[in-house]
Amino acid sequence: MQVDTLTIVGVGLIGASVGCATRRHHLARRVIGIDRAPEVAARALAIGALDEVDLQLGPAVAMADLVLFATPVDQIVDAVLEAASACRPDTLLTDVGSAKARIVRDVEAGGWPVTCFVGGHPLAGSEKRGPEHADPDLFQGRVVVLTPTERTDVRALGKVSSFWESLGARVRIMDAAEHDWAVAFVSHLPHLAAAALIRAVPEKAAGMAATGFRDTTRVAAGDPALWAGILVQNRDPVLGALSGLRDQLGTWADCLREGDRRALENLLAEAKRARDALGD
Amino acid sequence: MQVDTLTIVGVGLIGASVGCATRRHHLARRVIGIDRAPEVAARALAIGALDEVDLQLGPAVAMADLVLFATPVDQIVDAVLEAASACRPDTLLTDVGSAKARIVRDVEAGGWPVTCFVGGHPLAGSEKRGPEHADPDLFQGRVVVLTPTERTDVRALGKVSSFWESLGARVRIMDAAEHDWAVAFVSHLPHLAAAALIRAVPEKAAGMAATGFRDTTRVAAGDPALWAGILVQNRDPVLGALSGLRDQLGTWADCLREGDRRALENLLAEAKRARDALGD
Repeated sequence: MQVDTLTIVGVGLIGASVGCATRRHHLARRVIGIDRAPEVAARALAIGALDEVDLQLGPAVAMADLVLFATPVDQIVDAVLEAASACRPDTLLTDVGSAKARIVRDVEAGGWPVTCFVGGHPLAGSEKRGPEHADPDLFQGRVVVLTPTERTDVRALGKVSSFWESLGARVRIMDAAEHDWAVAFVSHLPHLAAAALIRAVPEKAAGMAATGFRDTTRVAAGDPALWAGILVQNRDPVLGALSGLRDQLGTWADCLREGDRRALENLLAEAKRARDALGD
Repeated sequence: MQVDTLTIVGVGLIGASVGCATRRHHLARRVIGIDRAPEVAARALAIGALDEVDLQLGPAVAMADLVLFATPVDQIVDAVLEAASACRPDTLLTDVGSAKARIVRDVEAGGWPVTCFVGGHPLAGSEKRGPEHADPDLFQGRVVVLTPTERTDVRALGKVSSFWESLGARVRIMDAAEHDWAVAFVSHLPHLAAAALIRAVPEKAAGMAATGFRDTTRVAAGDPALWAGILVQNRDPVLGALSGLRDQLGTWADCLREGDRRALENLLAEAKRARDALGD
Protein backbone atom coordinates (compact mmCIF):
# COMPACT_ATOMS: atom_id res chain seq x y z
CA MET A 1 0.00 0.00 0.00
CA GLN A 2 1.49 3.34 -1.06
CA VAL A 3 -0.88 5.79 0.57
CA ASP A 4 -3.53 5.58 3.21
CA THR A 5 -6.11 7.90 1.60
CA LEU A 6 -6.34 8.94 -2.05
CA THR A 7 -8.88 11.63 -2.88
CA ILE A 8 -9.91 12.07 -6.51
CA VAL A 9 -11.49 15.41 -7.40
CA GLY A 10 -13.54 14.94 -10.59
CA VAL A 11 -14.45 11.33 -11.27
CA GLY A 12 -15.18 11.25 -15.00
CA LEU A 13 -13.40 8.82 -17.32
CA ILE A 14 -9.86 9.67 -16.18
CA GLY A 15 -10.55 10.15 -12.47
CA ALA A 16 -12.61 6.97 -12.25
CA SER A 17 -9.95 5.04 -14.20
CA VAL A 18 -7.35 6.11 -11.63
CA GLY A 19 -9.75 4.99 -8.89
CA CYS A 20 -10.33 1.58 -10.48
CA ALA A 21 -6.62 1.02 -11.07
CA THR A 22 -5.69 2.14 -7.53
CA ARG A 23 -8.21 -0.22 -5.97
CA ARG A 24 -7.23 -3.11 -8.21
CA HIS A 25 -3.54 -2.74 -7.34
CA HIS A 26 -4.28 -2.08 -3.63
CA LEU A 27 -2.32 1.17 -3.74
CA ALA A 28 -4.49 2.97 -1.18
CA ARG A 29 -6.39 1.87 1.91
CA ARG A 30 -9.32 3.99 0.77
CA VAL A 31 -10.24 6.02 -2.29
CA ILE A 32 -12.52 9.01 -1.75
CA GLY A 33 -14.19 10.64 -4.75
CA ILE A 34 -15.86 13.99 -5.19
CA ASP A 35 -17.47 15.57 -8.23
CA ARG A 36 -19.33 18.80 -8.96
CA ALA A 37 -22.13 16.58 -10.20
CA PRO A 38 -23.06 14.31 -7.28
CA GLU A 39 -24.73 11.79 -9.64
CA VAL A 40 -21.39 11.33 -11.44
CA ALA A 41 -19.71 10.54 -8.11
CA ALA A 42 -22.52 8.09 -7.32
CA ARG A 43 -21.95 6.34 -10.66
CA ALA A 44 -18.19 6.15 -10.03
CA LEU A 45 -18.94 4.57 -6.64
CA ALA A 46 -21.37 2.13 -8.25
CA ILE A 47 -18.82 0.84 -10.77
CA GLY A 48 -16.27 0.27 -8.02
CA ALA A 49 -13.92 3.17 -8.74
CA LEU A 50 -14.25 4.53 -5.19
CA ASP A 51 -14.66 3.39 -1.61
CA GLU A 52 -16.47 6.55 -0.52
CA VAL A 53 -18.05 9.67 -1.95
CA ASP A 54 -17.83 13.05 -0.30
CA LEU A 55 -19.96 16.06 -1.20
CA GLN A 56 -17.62 18.82 -0.01
CA LEU A 57 -14.04 19.44 -0.97
CA GLY A 58 -12.78 20.38 2.53
CA PRO A 59 -13.70 17.12 4.28
CA ALA A 60 -12.81 15.09 1.16
CA VAL A 61 -9.19 16.28 1.20
CA ALA A 62 -8.70 16.84 4.95
CA MET A 63 -7.38 13.33 5.60
CA ALA A 64 -5.83 12.68 2.17
CA ASP A 65 -2.20 11.70 1.62
CA LEU A 66 -2.60 12.25 -2.11
CA VAL A 67 -5.19 14.36 -3.95
CA LEU A 68 -5.57 13.91 -7.70
CA PHE A 69 -7.40 16.65 -9.61
CA ALA A 70 -9.16 15.29 -12.70
CA THR A 71 -11.74 17.99 -13.34
CA PRO A 72 -12.01 19.83 -16.68
CA VAL A 73 -8.75 21.67 -17.23
CA ASP A 74 -10.09 25.15 -16.49
CA GLN A 75 -11.41 24.19 -13.03
CA ILE A 76 -8.17 22.67 -11.76
CA VAL A 77 -6.44 25.77 -10.35
CA ASP A 78 -9.41 26.86 -8.24
CA ALA A 79 -9.87 23.34 -6.92
CA VAL A 80 -6.16 22.99 -6.05
CA LEU A 81 -6.08 26.32 -4.19
CA GLU A 82 -9.26 25.52 -2.30
CA ALA A 83 -7.99 22.06 -1.37
CA ALA A 84 -4.58 23.40 -0.35
CA SER A 85 -6.13 25.44 2.42
CA ALA A 86 -8.08 22.44 3.72
CA CYS A 87 -5.55 19.62 3.69
CA ARG A 88 -2.51 18.72 5.79
CA PRO A 89 0.70 20.57 4.87
CA ASP A 90 2.34 17.33 3.72
CA THR A 91 -0.51 16.20 1.49
CA LEU A 92 0.62 15.62 -2.09
CA LEU A 93 -1.41 17.34 -4.80
CA THR A 94 -1.28 16.43 -8.47
CA ASP A 95 -3.50 16.85 -11.51
CA VAL A 96 -4.18 15.39 -14.96
CA GLY A 97 -4.81 18.59 -16.95
CA SER A 98 -3.99 18.45 -20.68
CA ALA A 99 -2.24 21.84 -20.72
CA LYS A 100 0.24 22.54 -17.96
CA ALA A 101 1.94 25.94 -18.13
CA ARG A 102 -1.02 28.01 -16.97
CA ILE A 103 -2.02 25.55 -14.24
CA VAL A 104 1.48 25.33 -12.80
CA ARG A 105 1.95 29.11 -12.97
CA ASP A 106 -1.43 29.95 -11.42
CA VAL A 107 -1.10 27.37 -8.65
CA GLU A 108 2.33 28.76 -7.73
CA ALA A 109 0.93 32.29 -7.89
CA GLY A 110 -1.86 31.25 -5.50
CA GLY A 111 -0.01 32.43 -2.43
CA TRP A 112 0.07 29.07 -0.75
CA PRO A 113 3.32 27.11 -0.23
CA VAL A 114 2.88 24.74 -3.15
CA THR A 115 6.00 22.64 -2.79
CA CYS A 116 3.79 19.55 -2.67
CA PHE A 117 1.97 20.25 -5.95
CA VAL A 118 3.21 18.32 -9.00
CA GLY A 119 1.61 19.06 -12.38
CA GLY A 120 0.86 15.95 -14.40
CA HIS A 121 -0.74 14.73 -17.63
CA PRO A 122 -1.37 11.09 -18.54
CA LEU A 123 -1.22 10.71 -22.35
CA ALA A 124 -4.19 8.41 -22.33
CA GLY A 125 -7.89 8.90 -22.75
CA SER A 126 -10.80 8.32 -25.01
CA GLU A 127 -13.40 10.25 -26.95
CA LYS A 128 -15.89 8.76 -24.48
CA ARG A 129 -16.73 10.37 -21.15
CA GLY A 130 -18.07 9.49 -17.73
CA PRO A 131 -17.12 6.92 -15.09
CA GLU A 132 -19.01 4.19 -17.00
CA HIS A 133 -16.12 4.15 -19.48
CA ALA A 134 -13.44 3.93 -16.81
CA ASP A 135 -10.72 1.39 -17.52
CA PRO A 136 -8.24 0.22 -14.86
CA ASP A 137 -5.79 -0.60 -17.70
CA LEU A 138 -6.02 2.88 -19.25
CA PHE A 139 -2.53 3.86 -18.08
CA GLN A 140 -0.81 0.55 -18.76
CA GLY A 141 2.27 1.26 -20.85
CA ARG A 142 1.21 4.88 -21.42
CA VAL A 143 3.34 7.95 -20.81
CA VAL A 144 2.49 10.23 -17.90
CA VAL A 145 4.25 13.60 -18.11
CA LEU A 146 5.09 15.35 -14.85
CA THR A 147 6.04 19.03 -14.96
CA PRO A 148 7.82 20.06 -11.74
CA THR A 149 9.25 23.54 -11.30
CA GLU A 150 12.26 24.67 -9.29
CA ARG A 151 9.92 25.08 -6.32
CA THR A 152 8.61 21.52 -6.44
CA ASP A 153 9.68 19.30 -3.55
CA VAL A 154 11.82 16.46 -4.89
CA ARG A 155 10.27 13.90 -2.57
CA ALA A 156 6.79 14.92 -3.73
CA LEU A 157 7.89 14.40 -7.32
CA GLY A 158 9.31 10.99 -6.44
CA LYS A 159 6.11 9.88 -4.74
CA VAL A 160 3.81 11.04 -7.53
CA SER A 161 6.11 9.32 -10.08
CA SER A 162 6.03 6.11 -8.14
CA PHE A 163 2.22 6.27 -7.85
CA TRP A 164 1.79 6.50 -11.65
CA GLU A 165 4.37 3.78 -12.23
CA SER A 166 2.39 1.51 -9.92
CA LEU A 167 -0.58 2.04 -12.28
CA GLY A 168 1.56 0.75 -15.16
CA ALA A 169 2.54 4.12 -16.66
CA ARG A 170 5.96 5.35 -17.79
CA VAL A 171 6.77 8.73 -16.26
CA ARG A 172 8.50 11.51 -18.23
CA ILE A 173 9.66 14.67 -16.53
CA MET A 174 9.33 17.75 -18.74
CA ASP A 175 9.17 21.49 -18.55
CA ALA A 176 5.51 22.61 -18.61
CA ALA A 177 5.97 24.85 -21.66
CA GLU A 178 7.75 22.11 -23.58
CA HIS A 179 4.91 19.73 -22.73
CA ASP A 180 2.32 22.21 -23.94
CA TRP A 181 4.18 22.77 -27.19
CA ALA A 182 4.35 19.02 -27.90
CA VAL A 183 0.72 18.20 -27.04
CA ALA A 184 -0.45 21.13 -29.15
CA PHE A 185 0.87 19.12 -32.13
CA VAL A 186 0.03 15.53 -31.20
CA SER A 187 -3.23 15.99 -29.32
CA HIS A 188 -4.85 19.41 -29.70
CA LEU A 189 -4.08 19.91 -33.42
CA PRO A 190 -5.43 16.45 -34.40
CA HIS A 191 -8.62 17.28 -32.52
CA LEU A 192 -9.02 20.54 -34.44
CA ALA A 193 -8.14 18.86 -37.73
CA ALA A 194 -10.68 16.08 -37.17
CA ALA A 195 -13.41 18.50 -36.14
CA ALA A 196 -12.66 20.88 -39.04
CA LEU A 197 -12.61 17.93 -41.46
CA ILE A 198 -15.99 16.64 -40.38
CA ARG A 199 -17.49 20.13 -40.62
CA ALA A 200 -16.02 20.56 -44.12
CA VAL A 201 -17.90 17.52 -45.43
CA PRO A 202 -21.36 18.19 -46.89
CA GLU A 203 -24.06 15.98 -45.38
CA LYS A 204 -24.77 14.38 -48.76
CA ALA A 205 -21.16 13.19 -49.04
CA ALA A 206 -20.98 11.97 -45.43
CA GLY A 207 -23.18 8.99 -46.35
CA MET A 208 -20.25 7.61 -48.36
CA ALA A 209 -17.85 7.54 -45.40
CA ALA A 210 -15.94 4.30 -44.85
CA THR A 211 -13.44 3.16 -42.21
CA GLY A 212 -10.69 5.62 -43.20
CA PHE A 213 -12.95 8.61 -42.61
CA ARG A 214 -14.16 7.15 -39.31
CA ASP A 215 -10.58 6.68 -38.07
CA THR A 216 -9.50 10.14 -39.18
CA THR A 217 -12.39 11.88 -37.42
CA ARG A 218 -12.84 9.65 -34.34
CA VAL A 219 -11.42 12.14 -31.81
CA ALA A 220 -13.97 14.76 -32.91
CA ALA A 221 -16.54 12.85 -30.83
CA GLY A 222 -14.83 14.13 -27.67
CA ASP A 223 -16.71 16.31 -25.18
CA PRO A 224 -17.07 19.86 -26.63
CA ALA A 225 -16.92 21.75 -23.31
CA LEU A 226 -13.86 19.83 -22.16
CA TRP A 227 -12.05 20.43 -25.45
CA ALA A 228 -12.97 24.09 -25.71
CA GLY A 229 -11.39 24.50 -22.27
CA ILE A 230 -8.22 22.67 -23.34
CA LEU A 231 -7.83 24.67 -26.55
CA VAL A 232 -8.28 28.00 -24.79
CA GLN A 233 -5.84 27.04 -22.02
CA ASN A 234 -3.20 26.11 -24.58
CA ARG A 235 -4.06 28.85 -27.04
CA ASP A 236 -0.67 30.06 -28.26
CA PRO A 237 0.97 26.67 -28.84
CA VAL A 238 -2.22 25.46 -30.57
CA LEU A 239 -2.31 28.53 -32.82
CA GLY A 240 1.31 27.84 -33.77
CA ALA A 241 0.58 24.21 -34.59
CA LEU A 242 -2.54 25.17 -36.52
CA SER A 243 -0.57 27.62 -38.59
CA GLY A 244 1.88 24.80 -39.45
CA LEU A 245 -0.97 22.58 -40.63
CA ARG A 246 -2.48 25.35 -42.74
CA ASP A 247 0.91 25.95 -44.40
CA GLN A 248 1.18 22.22 -45.11
CA LEU A 249 -2.26 22.10 -46.70
CA GLY A 250 -1.28 25.08 -48.83
CA THR A 251 1.75 23.18 -50.10
CA TRP A 252 -0.38 20.15 -50.97
CA ALA A 253 -2.93 22.31 -52.74
CA ASP A 254 -0.18 23.94 -54.83
CA CYS A 255 1.25 20.58 -55.90
CA LEU A 256 -2.17 19.26 -56.77
CA ARG A 257 -3.21 22.40 -58.67
CA GLU A 258 -0.07 22.11 -60.78
CA GLY A 259 -0.73 18.38 -61.26
CA ASP A 260 2.79 17.73 -59.96
CA ARG A 261 2.45 14.03 -59.37
CA ARG A 262 6.07 13.46 -58.44
CA ALA A 263 6.00 16.16 -55.75
CA LEU A 264 2.75 14.75 -54.36
CA GLU A 265 4.20 11.27 -54.26
CA ASN A 266 7.27 12.59 -52.40
CA LEU A 267 5.09 14.34 -49.82
CA LEU A 268 2.97 11.21 -49.40
CA ALA A 269 6.08 9.05 -49.04
CA GLU A 270 7.44 11.32 -46.29
CA ALA A 271 4.10 11.21 -44.50
CA LYS A 272 4.00 7.42 -44.80
CA ARG A 273 7.52 7.07 -43.36
CA ALA A 274 6.59 9.25 -40.39
CA ARG A 275 3.31 7.37 -39.84
CA ASP A 276 4.95 3.93 -40.16
CA ALA A 277 7.47 4.97 -37.51
CA LEU A 278 4.62 5.41 -35.01
CA GLY A 279 3.36 1.83 -35.33
CA ASP A 280 -0.26 0.64 -35.12
CA MET B 1 -21.98 -20.33 -59.72
CA GLN B 2 -22.46 -16.94 -61.36
CA VAL B 3 -19.69 -16.94 -63.94
CA ASP B 4 -17.46 -19.58 -65.47
CA THR B 5 -14.22 -17.56 -65.57
CA LEU B 6 -13.38 -14.42 -63.58
CA THR B 7 -10.14 -12.67 -64.51
CA ILE B 8 -8.67 -10.18 -62.04
CA VAL B 9 -6.19 -7.69 -63.47
CA GLY B 10 -4.04 -6.41 -60.61
CA VAL B 11 -4.04 -8.66 -57.57
CA GLY B 12 -2.98 -6.40 -54.72
CA LEU B 13 -5.08 -6.05 -51.59
CA ILE B 14 -8.36 -5.30 -53.36
CA GLY B 15 -7.98 -7.67 -56.33
CA ALA B 16 -6.84 -10.54 -54.12
CA SER B 17 -9.70 -9.87 -51.67
CA VAL B 18 -12.18 -10.19 -54.56
CA GLY B 19 -10.44 -13.44 -55.56
CA CYS B 20 -10.62 -14.88 -52.03
CA ALA B 21 -14.27 -13.90 -51.61
CA THR B 22 -15.22 -15.27 -55.05
CA ARG B 23 -13.58 -18.59 -54.33
CA ARG B 24 -15.05 -18.85 -50.85
CA HIS B 25 -18.58 -18.20 -52.13
CA HIS B 26 -18.08 -20.44 -55.22
CA LEU B 27 -19.09 -17.61 -57.53
CA ALA B 28 -16.79 -18.66 -60.40
CA ARG B 29 -15.56 -22.00 -61.71
CA ARG B 30 -12.09 -20.52 -61.99
CA VAL B 31 -10.38 -17.29 -61.02
CA ILE B 32 -7.45 -16.18 -63.18
CA GLY B 33 -5.11 -13.47 -61.92
CA ILE B 34 -2.58 -11.30 -63.67
CA ASP B 35 -0.34 -8.58 -62.34
CA ARG B 36 2.35 -6.33 -63.78
CA ALA B 37 4.59 -7.75 -61.07
CA PRO B 38 4.58 -11.55 -61.59
CA GLU B 39 5.76 -12.12 -57.99
CA VAL B 40 2.64 -10.36 -56.72
CA ALA B 41 0.48 -12.71 -58.80
CA ALA B 42 2.45 -15.67 -57.44
CA ARG B 43 1.79 -14.49 -53.87
CA ALA B 44 -1.92 -14.06 -54.60
CA LEU B 45 -1.97 -17.62 -55.94
CA ALA B 46 -0.10 -18.86 -52.86
CA ILE B 47 -2.62 -17.39 -50.41
CA GLY B 48 -5.51 -18.99 -52.31
CA ALA B 49 -6.94 -15.87 -53.99
CA LEU B 50 -6.62 -17.41 -57.47
CA ASP B 51 -6.89 -20.72 -59.31
CA GLU B 52 -4.43 -19.74 -62.02
CA VAL B 53 -1.96 -17.03 -62.89
CA ASP B 54 -1.45 -15.75 -66.41
CA LEU B 55 1.49 -13.61 -67.52
CA GLN B 56 -0.15 -11.90 -70.52
CA LEU B 57 -3.33 -9.89 -70.61
CA GLY B 58 -4.64 -11.29 -73.96
CA PRO B 59 -4.81 -14.94 -72.93
CA ALA B 60 -5.87 -14.01 -69.39
CA VAL B 61 -9.04 -12.29 -70.61
CA ALA B 62 -9.75 -14.30 -73.78
CA MET B 63 -12.00 -16.82 -72.02
CA ALA B 64 -13.30 -14.56 -69.24
CA ASP B 65 -16.98 -13.92 -68.55
CA LEU B 66 -16.08 -11.12 -66.16
CA VAL B 67 -12.87 -9.11 -65.98
CA LEU B 68 -12.25 -6.99 -62.88
CA PHE B 69 -9.58 -4.29 -63.12
CA ALA B 70 -7.93 -3.61 -59.77
CA THR B 71 -4.68 -1.97 -60.85
CA PRO B 72 -3.61 1.49 -59.61
CA VAL B 73 -6.20 3.98 -60.82
CA ASP B 74 -4.08 5.52 -63.55
CA GLN B 75 -3.41 2.18 -65.28
CA ILE B 76 -7.04 1.13 -65.54
CA VAL B 77 -8.03 2.77 -68.84
CA ASP B 78 -5.11 1.33 -70.79
CA ALA B 79 -5.72 -2.11 -69.35
CA VAL B 80 -9.46 -1.98 -70.14
CA LEU B 81 -8.86 -0.90 -73.74
CA GLU B 82 -6.19 -3.56 -74.26
CA ALA B 83 -8.41 -6.24 -72.74
CA ALA B 84 -11.43 -5.13 -74.75
CA SER B 85 -9.69 -5.99 -77.98
CA ALA B 86 -8.73 -9.44 -76.72
CA CYS B 87 -11.90 -10.71 -75.03
CA ARG B 88 -15.25 -11.96 -76.30
CA PRO B 89 -17.76 -9.23 -77.22
CA ASP B 90 -20.07 -10.26 -74.38
CA THR B 91 -17.40 -10.27 -71.68
CA LEU B 92 -18.29 -7.97 -68.80
CA LEU B 93 -15.61 -5.49 -67.76
CA THR B 94 -15.62 -3.62 -64.48
CA ASP B 95 -13.09 -1.85 -62.29
CA VAL B 96 -12.46 -0.70 -58.72
CA GLY B 97 -10.81 2.69 -59.37
CA SER B 98 -11.27 5.29 -56.62
CA ALA B 99 -12.03 8.13 -59.06
CA LYS B 100 -14.53 7.40 -61.81
CA ALA B 101 -15.26 10.31 -64.17
CA ARG B 102 -11.98 10.18 -66.08
CA ILE B 103 -11.94 6.40 -66.33
CA VAL B 104 -15.51 6.18 -67.60
CA ARG B 105 -14.94 9.02 -70.08
CA ASP B 106 -11.64 7.68 -71.40
CA VAL B 107 -12.91 4.12 -71.72
CA GLU B 108 -15.92 5.35 -73.72
CA ALA B 109 -13.63 7.52 -75.84
CA GLY B 110 -11.45 4.51 -76.56
CA GLY B 111 -13.21 3.74 -79.81
CA TRP B 112 -14.33 0.30 -78.80
CA PRO B 113 -18.00 -0.57 -78.17
CA VAL B 114 -17.96 -0.37 -74.41
CA THR B 115 -21.53 -1.27 -73.59
CA CYS B 116 -20.23 -4.05 -71.37
CA PHE B 117 -17.99 -1.82 -69.23
CA VAL B 118 -19.36 -0.78 -65.85
CA GLY B 119 -17.31 1.59 -63.70
CA GLY B 120 -17.20 0.62 -60.05
CA HIS B 121 -15.66 1.52 -56.70
CA PRO B 122 -15.91 -0.53 -53.51
CA LEU B 123 -15.79 1.80 -50.49
CA ALA B 124 -13.54 -0.57 -48.62
CA GLY B 125 -9.83 -0.91 -48.28
CA SER B 126 -6.96 -0.56 -45.91
CA GLU B 127 -3.75 1.40 -45.52
CA LYS B 128 -2.00 -1.93 -46.07
CA ARG B 129 -1.09 -3.26 -49.50
CA GLY B 130 -0.39 -6.53 -51.25
CA PRO B 131 -2.25 -9.84 -51.54
CA GLU B 132 -0.95 -10.94 -48.12
CA HIS B 133 -3.47 -8.55 -46.56
CA ALA B 134 -6.38 -9.79 -48.67
CA ASP B 135 -9.58 -10.35 -46.71
CA PRO B 136 -12.53 -12.31 -48.12
CA ASP B 137 -14.82 -10.34 -45.79
CA LEU B 138 -13.52 -6.96 -46.96
CA PHE B 139 -16.74 -6.14 -48.84
CA GLN B 140 -19.19 -7.54 -46.32
CA GLY B 141 -21.75 -4.84 -45.57
CA ARG B 142 -19.72 -2.24 -47.50
CA VAL B 143 -21.02 0.03 -50.23
CA VAL B 144 -19.91 -0.57 -53.82
CA VAL B 145 -20.69 2.36 -56.10
CA LEU B 146 -21.37 1.59 -59.77
CA THR B 147 -21.31 4.47 -62.26
CA PRO B 148 -23.06 3.45 -65.48
CA THR B 149 -23.57 5.95 -68.32
CA GLU B 150 -26.35 6.16 -70.88
CA ARG B 151 -24.31 3.82 -73.08
CA THR B 152 -23.97 1.11 -70.43
CA ASP B 153 -25.86 -2.10 -71.16
CA VAL B 154 -28.53 -2.60 -68.50
CA ARG B 155 -27.93 -6.34 -68.30
CA ALA B 156 -24.21 -5.75 -67.78
CA LEU B 157 -25.05 -3.39 -64.92
CA GLY B 158 -27.40 -5.99 -63.43
CA LYS B 159 -24.79 -8.75 -63.58
CA VAL B 160 -22.00 -6.64 -62.07
CA SER B 161 -24.41 -5.52 -59.30
CA SER B 162 -25.36 -9.07 -58.54
CA PHE B 163 -21.70 -10.14 -58.45
CA TRP B 164 -20.84 -7.54 -55.79
CA GLU B 165 -23.96 -8.36 -53.79
CA SER B 166 -22.89 -11.99 -53.74
CA LEU B 167 -19.66 -10.81 -52.07
CA GLY B 168 -21.78 -9.22 -49.33
CA ALA B 169 -21.68 -5.62 -50.59
CA ARG B 170 -24.52 -3.11 -50.94
CA VAL B 171 -24.58 -1.59 -54.44
CA ARG B 172 -25.31 2.10 -55.04
CA ILE B 173 -25.75 3.45 -58.55
CA MET B 174 -24.42 6.97 -59.00
CA ASP B 175 -23.29 9.39 -61.62
CA ALA B 176 -19.49 9.26 -61.94
CA ALA B 177 -19.05 12.98 -61.27
CA GLU B 178 -21.29 12.84 -58.20
CA HIS B 179 -19.27 9.88 -56.92
CA ASP B 180 -16.02 11.75 -57.44
CA TRP B 181 -17.34 14.81 -55.62
CA ALA B 182 -18.41 12.72 -52.61
CA VAL B 183 -15.21 10.63 -52.31
CA ALA B 184 -13.12 13.79 -52.59
CA PHE B 185 -14.61 14.73 -49.20
CA VAL B 186 -14.84 11.41 -47.38
CA SER B 187 -11.78 9.61 -48.74
CA HIS B 188 -9.29 11.81 -50.58
CA LEU B 189 -9.52 14.85 -48.27
CA PRO B 190 -9.02 12.76 -45.08
CA HIS B 191 -5.94 11.24 -46.70
CA LEU B 192 -4.51 14.68 -47.44
CA ALA B 193 -5.46 15.96 -43.98
CA ALA B 194 -3.80 13.00 -42.26
CA ALA B 195 -0.65 13.28 -44.38
CA ALA B 196 -0.45 17.06 -43.92
CA LEU B 197 -1.02 16.67 -40.17
CA ILE B 198 1.77 14.18 -39.75
CA ARG B 199 4.14 16.35 -41.76
CA ALA B 200 3.21 19.38 -39.64
CA VAL B 201 4.36 17.66 -36.44
CA PRO B 202 8.01 18.20 -35.46
CA GLU B 203 9.85 14.96 -34.80
CA LYS B 204 10.48 15.92 -31.19
CA ALA B 205 6.74 16.24 -30.54
CA ALA B 206 5.86 13.01 -32.38
CA GLY B 207 7.29 10.99 -29.49
CA MET B 208 4.34 12.14 -27.37
CA ALA B 209 1.72 10.74 -29.75
CA ALA B 210 -1.01 8.61 -28.17
CA THR B 211 -3.99 6.69 -29.60
CA GLY B 212 -5.88 9.77 -30.80
CA PHE B 213 -3.00 10.88 -33.01
CA ARG B 214 -2.57 7.34 -34.32
CA ASP B 215 -6.24 7.10 -35.30
CA THR B 216 -6.28 10.53 -36.92
CA THR B 217 -3.23 9.81 -39.08
CA ARG B 218 -3.68 6.06 -39.78
CA VAL B 219 -4.66 6.46 -43.45
CA ALA B 220 -1.42 8.35 -44.16
CA ALA B 221 0.34 4.97 -44.13
CA GLY B 222 -1.28 4.19 -47.49
CA ASP B 223 0.82 3.53 -50.58
CA PRO B 224 2.24 6.88 -51.86
CA ALA B 225 2.25 5.99 -55.58
CA LEU B 226 -1.32 4.69 -55.44
CA TRP B 227 -2.55 7.78 -53.63
CA ALA B 228 -0.67 10.25 -55.82
CA GLY B 229 -2.45 8.64 -58.77
CA ILE B 230 -5.85 8.90 -57.10
CA LEU B 231 -5.38 12.56 -56.12
CA VAL B 232 -4.25 13.56 -59.60
CA GLN B 233 -7.14 11.67 -61.25
CA ASN B 234 -9.65 13.43 -59.01
CA ARG B 235 -7.85 16.77 -58.96
CA ASP B 236 -10.68 19.30 -59.24
CA PRO B 237 -13.08 17.76 -56.71
CA VAL B 238 -10.16 17.26 -54.29
CA LEU B 239 -9.04 20.88 -54.70
CA GLY B 240 -12.60 21.97 -53.92
CA ALA B 241 -12.76 19.82 -50.80
CA LEU B 242 -9.31 21.00 -49.70
CA SER B 243 -10.35 24.58 -50.03
CA GLY B 244 -13.35 23.86 -47.79
CA LEU B 245 -11.09 22.35 -45.13
CA ARG B 246 -8.69 25.31 -45.28
CA ASP B 247 -11.61 27.71 -44.81
CA GLN B 248 -12.77 25.68 -41.81
CA LEU B 249 -9.33 25.77 -40.22
CA GLY B 250 -9.26 29.52 -40.77
CA THR B 251 -12.55 29.85 -38.87
CA TRP B 252 -11.20 27.76 -35.96
CA ALA B 253 -7.99 29.79 -35.86
CA ASP B 254 -9.99 33.04 -35.72
CA CYS B 255 -12.14 31.80 -32.81
CA LEU B 256 -9.10 30.60 -30.94
CA ARG B 257 -7.08 33.77 -31.55
CA GLU B 258 -9.96 35.81 -30.13
CA GLY B 259 -10.23 33.38 -27.20
CA ASP B 260 -13.93 32.97 -28.08
CA ARG B 261 -14.61 29.92 -25.98
CA ARG B 262 -18.34 29.86 -26.64
CA ALA B 263 -17.86 29.89 -30.43
CA LEU B 264 -15.25 27.12 -30.16
CA GLU B 265 -17.57 25.04 -28.03
CA ASN B 266 -20.36 25.49 -30.59
CA LEU B 267 -18.08 24.40 -33.45
CA LEU B 268 -16.89 21.40 -31.43
CA ALA B 269 -20.49 20.47 -30.56
CA GLU B 270 -21.50 20.56 -34.24
CA ALA B 271 -18.50 18.40 -35.14
CA LYS B 272 -19.36 15.95 -32.36
CA ARG B 273 -22.96 15.66 -33.53
CA ALA B 274 -21.82 14.91 -37.08
CA ARG B 275 -19.22 12.39 -35.90
CA ASP B 276 -21.64 10.66 -33.51
CA ALA B 277 -24.07 10.24 -36.42
CA LEU B 278 -21.46 8.14 -38.25
CA GLY B 279 -21.16 5.55 -35.46
CA ASP B 280 -18.01 3.66 -34.46
